[in-house]
Amino acid sequence: MINIVNEIKNQDNIVVFVHENPDGDAIGSIISLSTALRLMGKNVEAYVEFYPSNNLFLIEKAPWVKTFDELDTSKVYNLAIALDCGDKMRMGKANEVFDKALSTINIDHHITNDNYGKYNFVDAKAAATGEIMYDLIKMLDIGLTTEIAEAIYLAIVSDTGTFKHSNTTPKTLETAARLLETGIDISYLIRKAFYETSLERTRCLGKVLSSLEVELDGKVGILHITPEELDNYNVDSQDLEGMVDFSRNIKGAEVGIFIKPRNGEYKISLRSNNYVDVAAIAGEFGGGGHVRAAGCSFSDMTIEEIKEKLLEKIKEQI
Amino acid sequence: MINIVNEIKNQDNIVVFVHENPDGDAIGSIISLSTALRLMGKNVEAYVEFYPSNNLFLIEKAPWVKTFDELDTSKVYNLAIALDCGDKMRMGKANEVFDKALSTINIDHHITNDNYGKYNFVDAKAAATGEIMYDLIKMLDIGLTTEIAEAIYLAIVSDTGTFKHSNTTPKTLETAARLLETGIDISYLIRKAFYETSLERTRCLGKVLSSLEVELDGKVGILHITPEELDNYNVDSQDLEGMVDFSRNIKGAEVGIFIKPRNGEYKISLRSNNYVDVAAIAGEFGGGGHVRAAGCSFSDMTIEEIKEKLLEKIKEQI
Repeated sequence: MINIVNEIKNQDNIVVFVHENPDGDAIGSIISLSTALRLMGKNVEAYVEFYPSNNLFLIEKAPWVKTFDELDTSKVYNLAIALDCGDKMRMGKANEVFDKALSTINIDHHITNDNYGKYNFVDAKAAATGEIMYDLIKMLDIGLTTEIAEAIYLAIVSDTGTFKHSNTTPKTLETAARLLETGIDISYLIRKAFYETSLERTRCLGKVLSSLEVELDGKVGILHITPEELDNYNVDSQDLEGMVDFSRNIKGAEVGIFIKPRNGEYKISLRSNNYVDVAAIAGEFGGGGHVRAAGCSFSDMTIEEIKEKLLEKIKEQI
Repeated sequence: MINIVNEIKNQDNIVVFVHENPDGDAIGSIISLSTALRLMGKNVEAYVEFYPSNNLFLIEKAPWVKTFDELDTSKVYNLAIALDCGDKMRMGKANEVFDKALSTINIDHHITNDNYGKYNFVDAKAAATGEIMYDLIKMLDIGLTTEIAEAIYLAIVSDTGTFKHSNTTPKTLETAARLLETGIDISYLIRKAFYETSLERTRCLGKVLSSLEVELDGKVGILHITPEELDNYNVDSQDLEGMVDFSRNIKGAEVGIFIKPRNGEYKISLRSNNYVDVAAIAGEFGGGGHVRAAGCSFSDMTIEEIKEKLLEKIKEQI
């Protein structure tokens, strides 16, 4: 880490990037580091693909964080820093600018990261890249302002599901304790980032939950919504994220399935709790993902046919 | 605290109680302390009014924790310890046994606690009584076993809403870090205690969410379910707990209302996010509670009439 600290201290005209389709960890990391660099008096620019709506309340406080619409891909920076990009292609359009920069830093917590920067710090034990930002900013001798603390807190709670995923470590909780000492309002932050939702999404969730059924002796929970039903609600595919969890939280369920329309086909989200490898099941149908969270698509099939196909494969593992 | 530690060390034949209608803090506190006392070689009994279903996964590991059905109110203990009882009447049937005991200890985090024990430790800054258990058990020189750590973790996450309520302090997070160091599976614990639910409850939630409407320019979210609708689901009033939060999490909403049938009348849950005093509104209708969470009841009125009454009062504060 010390070579990264020195490189940052010695450089100016810096640009910071995160992965495309930025989540809370990406947003919190880019805001916290760019705020720190500005406090050090650096000329710093920061770009994200777009502003995710649930994190706008923090992005509004960091107006120097721009979207890719304003990114000049011909510009040459002295130093480009990639945060939370497990793979440099995940920077999207920014990758071109990263390659042109005179020096590069890659800071991440994805185990698959192949150290594509000139300077690299990859800690797969960190629950979030934001957790690494805390250590880095401390080493940069920048005091922990409430702005920085809020941004890092957002990063950490986003990647740990507010400290409920198994990537949460004692260090994660200790870092959160230090951030909370600055007096930030975590209750407000968590409500804005995770709970505040639209009238339409809530009503649509009601419709989705009403569809719940269980199969294979209660071991599989299934939710669905048809294109015709979805048309009654003013929601986009982003709004349907997370709903799948209701299907796997049924007592006794091992697998949760959510069947939803997307671009003329059915997109399937699969989750498991303990032992079923849903990546393998998704893989059977041309999809993929993680052991506990995966997805695939079906076209030209009814919901009933899709259920049958999936249950056939799930049965082999239950 | 030291006099409490000494009293516990010097005594034997101890009974531990918590408040009626025990929540996760009560359950986690009684399990953790009774486990510690057993490890000290004490004869200890522990009683709760009943076993809350969402905490059964931990109660099953502490078979010495009995329900009030097995409580002999004529028995005289050398020491009775009340945990998490802001008021001694909240012990219910156990209060009689507490009064008969030769010595008593009262440990709590409710600011209203009037020090009704012979020995008292009331820390209103503690997020949960479980947080106090951590300090106490440490002072009793009992190593932090995974059983104790799990129980205290349950207590803390229950009273802080998994670290999202404003009672969460840096000390709360640090205590959680120490507990996590024992290697407990917090992801499993949180899923069992907070997310695992029944098929019937999830379907019923779907029905409730489908009823969502907003009033007063989106400042008030309202959910309801009629007795006839509720009859379609095999759920009890406990199952309806928490659903009110969906009404106040609508973007732009300040107040959330949930109107639900209970015992032939309508029970109203009221929540606010920032400035409306819902205790005052509930008070207008013979109810009460906290500034941000309160409740009241109406009989012989339709849901439409109830909405009208409530909105009239809410309007005065918005």
